[in-house]
Amino acid sequence: MSYDPTNIFAKILRGELPCHKVYEDDTALVMMDIFPQSKGHTLVIPKAASRNLLDADPAALAAVIPLVQRVARAVQAVTKADGLRLAQFNEAPAGQTVFHLHFHIIPAYEGVALGAHATGRADDSELAQLAKDIAAAL
Amino acid sequence: MSYDPTNIFAKILRGELPCHKVYEDDTALVMMDIFPQSKGHTLVIPKAASRNLLDADPAALAAVIPLVQRVARAVQAVTKADGLRLAQFNEAPAGQTVFHLHFHIIPAYEGVALGAHATGRADDSELAQLAKDIAAAL
Repeated sequence: MSYDPTNIFAKILRGELPCHKVYEDDTALVMMDIFPQSKGHTLVIPKAASRNLLDADPAALAAVIPLVQRVARAVQAVTKADGLRLAQFNEAPAGQTVFHLHFHIIPAYEGVALGAHATGRADDSELAQLAKDIAAAL
Repeated sequence: MSYDPTNIFAKILRGELPCHKVYEDDTALVMMDIFPQSKGHTLVIPKAASRNLLDADPAALAAVIPLVQRVARAVQAVTKADGLRLAQFNEAPAGQTVFHLHFHIIPAYEGVALGAHATGRADDSELAQLAKDIAAAL
């Protein structure tokens, strides 16, 4: 499987599409998932072009994982979640829908089954506030 | 939340409990999950003591993630899975059951819903063969 630079995350990385940005540096972009599995669902997207984990540059993975941790801590601080899932999907049968490597940070709340929330597209003002709050907690 | 060195992965790392080992070096142990969510479900366990992602040493994370990638590729090569999920759970509400940091590599097969398999404990001879085959593919 090859990398297609017309995927929507590549467009966001190039500034061709908007996002609820939490953080950006030379190596990665962090943004809110607009179809969150739970409140505070955040994505960490390495800028280096790779389809998923399988074809990624190992050095790019090593560089991004400490940021994934920092974001996870900030998401927890803001959402007061009772737990967090880190997830990364490779190919459609595993749940991948955008074919540019990304890590999901998905808050879990006591008594709320993960995956039970089919909330659809989240409210933009709520996402904007979450992005701002998580950025402040980074 | 603090780290409890009596967790079962700590016992496996100390050699006090057996496992279906795929690989081991100074920094990590790779083994088969004995309650697999699908055939080939493999765990990568950094040796450094941490409860989960949130309290891990960032350098330990950076060191282990290239191994996670290598294992993912080997699992795919052996299982011929159509996709793979990488998952890491933090605290019980997120699904964490053993409180020593570990990464799940879970094969996905076309037409088989992930999470639909409540297979229970896997057959030891099958796990032993998978461990051997994945080790050979690393």
